Amino acid sequence: MLRMSTLFLRTLREDPADAEVASHRLLIRAGYIRRAAPGIYSWMPLGLRVLAKVEAVVREEMERAGSQEVHFPALLPKEPYEATGRWDEYGPNLFRLQDRKGTDMLLAPTHEEMFTLLVKDLYSSYKDLPLSLFQIQTKYRDEARPRAGLLRGREFIMKDAYSFDVDDAGLEASYQAQREAYIRIFERLGIDYVIVTATSGAMGGSKSEEFLAPTVIGEDTFVRSPGGYAANVEAVTTPVPDPIDWTDAPDAHVEDTPDTPTIDTLVAVANERHPRPERPWTAADTLKNVVLALTSPTGERSLLVVGVPGDRDADLTRLEAALAPHTVEPATEADFARHPQLVKGYIGPGALGPQARDEGVARGDEGDTAIPYLLDPRIVPGTRWITGADAPGKHVFDLTAGRDFSADGTVEAAEVREGDPAPDGSGPLELARGVEIGHIFQLGRKYAEALGLQVLDVNGKQQTVTMGSYGVGVTRVMALLAELNNDELGLKWPAHVAPFHVHVVATGKDQDVFDTAERLAGELEAEGLEVLYDDRAGKVSPGVKFKDAELVGAPFILVVGRGLADGEVELKVRAEGSSEALALAEAVPTVVERVRAALA
Amino acid sequence: MLRMSTLFLRTLREDPADAEVASHRLLIRAGYIRRAAPGIYSWMPLGLRVLAKVEAVVREEMERAGSQEVHFPALLPKEPYEATGRWDEYGPNLFRLQDRKGTDMLLAPTHEEMFTLLVKDLYSSYKDLPLSLFQIQTKYRDEARPRAGLLRGREFIMKDAYSFDVDDAGLEASYQAQREAYIRIFERLGIDYVIVTATSGAMGGSKSEEFLAPTVIGEDTFVRSPGGYAANVEAVTTPVPDPIDWTDAPDAHVEDTPDTPTIDTLVAVANERHPRPERPWTAADTLKNVVLALTSPTGERSLLVVGVPGDRDADLTRLEAALAPHTVEPATEADFARHPQLVKGYIGPGALGPQARDEGVARGDEGDTAIPYLLDPRIVPGTRWITGADAPGKHVFDLTAGRDFSADGTVEAAEVREGDPAPDGSGPLELARGVEIGHIFQLGRKYAEALGLQVLDVNGKQQTVTMGSYGVGVTRVMALLAELNNDELGLKWPAHVAPFHVHVVATGKDQDVFDTAERLAGELEAEGLEVLYDDRAGKVSPGVKFKDAELVGAPFILVVGRGLADGEVELKVRAEGSSEALALAEAVPTVVERVRAALA
Repeated sequence: MLRMSTLFLRTLREDPADAEVASHRLLIRAGYIRRAAPGIYSWMPLGLRVLAKVEAVVREEMERAGSQEVHFPALLPKEPYEATGRWDEYGPNLFRLQDRKGTDMLLAPTHEEMFTLLVKDLYSSYKDLPLSLFQIQTKYRDEARPRAGLLRGREFIMKDAYSFDVDDAGLEASYQAQREAYIRIFERLGIDYVIVTATSGAMGGSKSEEFLAPTVIGEDTFVRSPGGYAANVEAVTTPVPDPIDWTDAPDAHVEDTPDTPTIDTLVAVANERHPRPERPWTAADTLKNVVLALTSPTGERSLLVVGVPGDRDADLTRLEAALAPHTVEPATEADFARHPQLVKGYIGPGALGPQARDEGVARGDEGDTAIPYLLDPRIVPGTRWITGADAPGKHVFDLTAGRDFSADGTVEAAEVREGDPAPDGSGPLELARGVEIGHIFQLGRKYAEALGLQVLDVNGKQQTVTMGSYGVGVTRVMALLAELNNDELGLKWPAHVAPFHVHVVATGKDQDVFDTAERLAGELEAEGLEVLYDDRAGKVSPGVKFKDAELVGAPFILVVGRGLADGEVELKVRAEGSSEALALAEAVPTVVERVRAALA
Repeated sequence: MLRMSTLFLRTLREDPADAEVASHRLLIRAGYIRRAAPGIYSWMPLGLRVLAKVEAVVREEMERAGSQEVHFPALLPKEPYEATGRWDEYGPNLFRLQDRKGTDMLLAPTHEEMFTLLVKDLYSSYKDLPLSLFQIQTKYRDEARPRAGLLRGREFIMKDAYSFDVDDAGLEASYQAQREAYIRIFERLGIDYVIVTATSGAMGGSKSEEFLAPTVIGEDTFVRSPGGYAANVEAVTTPVPDPIDWTDAPDAHVEDTPDTPTIDTLVAVANERHPRPERPWTAADTLKNVVLALTSPTGERSLLVVGVPGDRDADLTRLEAALAPHTVEPATEADFARHPQLVKGYIGPGALGPQARDEGVARGDEGDTAIPYLLDPRIVPGTRWITGADAPGKHVFDLTAGRDFSADGTVEAAEVREGDPAPDGSGPLELARGVEIGHIFQLGRKYAEALGLQVLDVNGKQQTVTMGSYGVGVTRVMALLAELNNDELGLKWPAHVAPFHVHVVATGKDQDVFDTAERLAGELEAEGLEVLYDDRAGKVSPGVKFKDAELVGAPFILVVGRGLADGEVELKVRAEGSSEALALAEAVPTVVERVRAALA
């Protein structure tokens, strides 16, 4: 039995200054974790107990899915990650170091390379496959902005699994087995989730899905349609309209539009000085060209311009997903200064993309050729736009895509909006935010090819193995459970992950109260329940004890106090905020029954 | 039930090229671990199972001793380690790195600093103490020479515990509690151990003891006496002889001793050209002055000369312990060249220590003052020596300590030899080698002072807390178990740490054999036993299956094969090398009984 008098725990009444979300605040205040460095946490006894329960659920479902547990080092040599390109692609997110001999090493963010090499090391035949391996292990990512406590840390625990198959059908089956295991894990943990189509990012591979837990504090935005489409906003593809016949379209014509560096000012001036008869101009009639600075993982910087309809913002998150592994940020004043062909506020396609290269018009002071130019997929041939004329105070009207300008390609650049059509025609999209709690990838042969993992197939021929990788953020899931289960008083753990089932509180100074509380706690423990007994004597008031119990958040609180004189104790159910008197003799069987029901 | 057909395991017939010791060889050949980088290993399914059982024993005994489990990050900020001096003192053994913002960080070798800061963060009163905390966690040390597989790795798992007390009596009690927990751990694991007095090294503190497992492959040398004295050789103190009256001693006199740069040549020439009547000169009559180069953790290099009786070698391990945190190596030719007062082979005290400084005799080409000079404790005042005369081919005879020369101090410089007297008078020392499996320290107030951990005492005054730290190398203990339990065929795990209890082997091609073996394996598992069933069909011969079973090393091997036609199966007990026939109907109850007896 845990005893409050000796348990290594200090609850805090004040929120930590850097805590933005409830789980972060409460896990620290209730003594589950402590911050050791930005994005790096120490685990206190209560936190470790919850974590162990979450891990146990994950482990059981992995084993049920036929995955075998292994454990890889966190500190690894550079070479395998160099062979797959990830040493560079991870950019500054990778913790790199050198050992005493100057050998380059890293702290692993995930372990695709090492699993691939281990299987290559030991297996050689299709008969050895399929194979599924997993580990529950500490991972490292040097996040630019660690935040929200355990939700985005730099040292964290992940369950990562890897599948190895000889053909695509095998990969599909292995992928589905992991997908089903994830569904069971999150259902057992009582976490609502949405499975969304996702992008693969630095991981590579052909197909991936994320498990997102919908919550407003989530960092990921996802979409859903009434017809069942669901995707991370990064993975949403824009339905491409049909091209428009431009036979009768008017010629493009440059107009004076003084002082119109923004879409709003441009629309106002256009309607005032160049009105069209049928209906007023709106932002949707304009083409906005946004200058972006791309940085490669090895630090090289270059510019890119994307054209989006003027009624939408460019979405840097979607652009980063599309342009991975580059990072993307808005161009700076210095960038504009170095490229005088970019007339800020009046940029048109004329100075950009293939036609600029053909015509040799675009040469900045660095002697560069035209800056690459990509268009939102909505800008199909025949669409007509008001856009910059590459001169201050001038815009060109009726500029027609395909006829008057072209680009180097298309890119998913524009923001996705509530009500946009789902790409599969399943209706208007709804937007929501979520926390990524799982991510499953069909990696295909990327890693096996890079590292030479082949097996002999049934015909005696070497076949490159096809792989999947599957991750659950274990510490993040625990934080999410705290995020989903709390109120203004503190945490409200579900019974199956609570650090203990019953918090027995003795109040007052009556020795009989303490003796009885201790006896009840012992009897509950003898029934197999996990019990914390608040045995603090002396100056700790009942109010402090109740506040601590509510903050720490065990599902059941059994109070032994004044009522004992009348043969009664009090049972509080934390999740319901309810309270009832129990006859002393009934206390143990009642609590045992309630706990077992909650665990069932 | 584990099945050989799907278990992620490949046994190897060949020893790995780099494996020096049996545990390293066999843990790799039997598929428990694989090398990922020098001193860094991946854990396969079987290895992880054994490791979990060792961890469980350690955890249970820690909890029984009242220690509470927490978990700290491996990746830590530099500042706390700088405050205690360990950032520098650990020298190249510490893995250091910088994060994306250029912040200095480290991979923790142990966690004294972090535990101290956490307790400081949360506790403030003597009423909160005593406190004992532990973790089972991955540690990092950039060993110069990782070796012997898990016995000396660079990433390894350690149980480290820390105690916090308000006074010395409390520390002593906490220390004894951990000491007793260690005794129980090693007894439960069936490991013979010796508790020896140890030095504290970079850890600091006033008292420490090591738990050493005696084995010839051990890196530590320790001594024992018949009267119960036991110490790491680094911690052995030399009994200091009484000073000798030198009233009647002859004057020192320089003699020609051509071509005598070694002790052997010196003794021969002394007996030939300068014999003494009473008995021949021996090496014990000579004083050998050994020039050493010291390197501080921050890389500064300096020279030191130690004088030892000529019949003993200087012991660099003992010197390093005495001179910690410096490392010690023999001086190089370049060192001698820079210090011409050091006449190699003929170095005497004249050019060394305080008298050289007083007389200003010692000035090398770097303008240095005399090199520090330390003596073995046996060289007490009145002892007479033949030693170098600081000129080639010349030695001085009857040079008398205290009268003719002195030094800057004494140091435990000479090797300890079998038969040397124990410092406590408990008889002659016996030498042996062992593996360090536990180390317990009374740290005292070093860390609490450096980091400001104080609590209010019973009188309301601030008191600096006194601490202990206590480590068990968990992965090393597992390797040691493999080292202690094997034969030429493979591993022989004790039942309580074996990856599974029974290895059921089906031989031949008879379907009935496989059906029966599978049924027996299932029944054994239903009785709570852990079973690996070798269900490999087809071309895997009985010989291969038996070899694998012996290599993998489960305590019981149940063979279902040809005897089944006569209603018999065969039970092999791996540790005893025995084999007996069991009636089929008796097989399950007999095996269950044997396993339970082995676990009891």
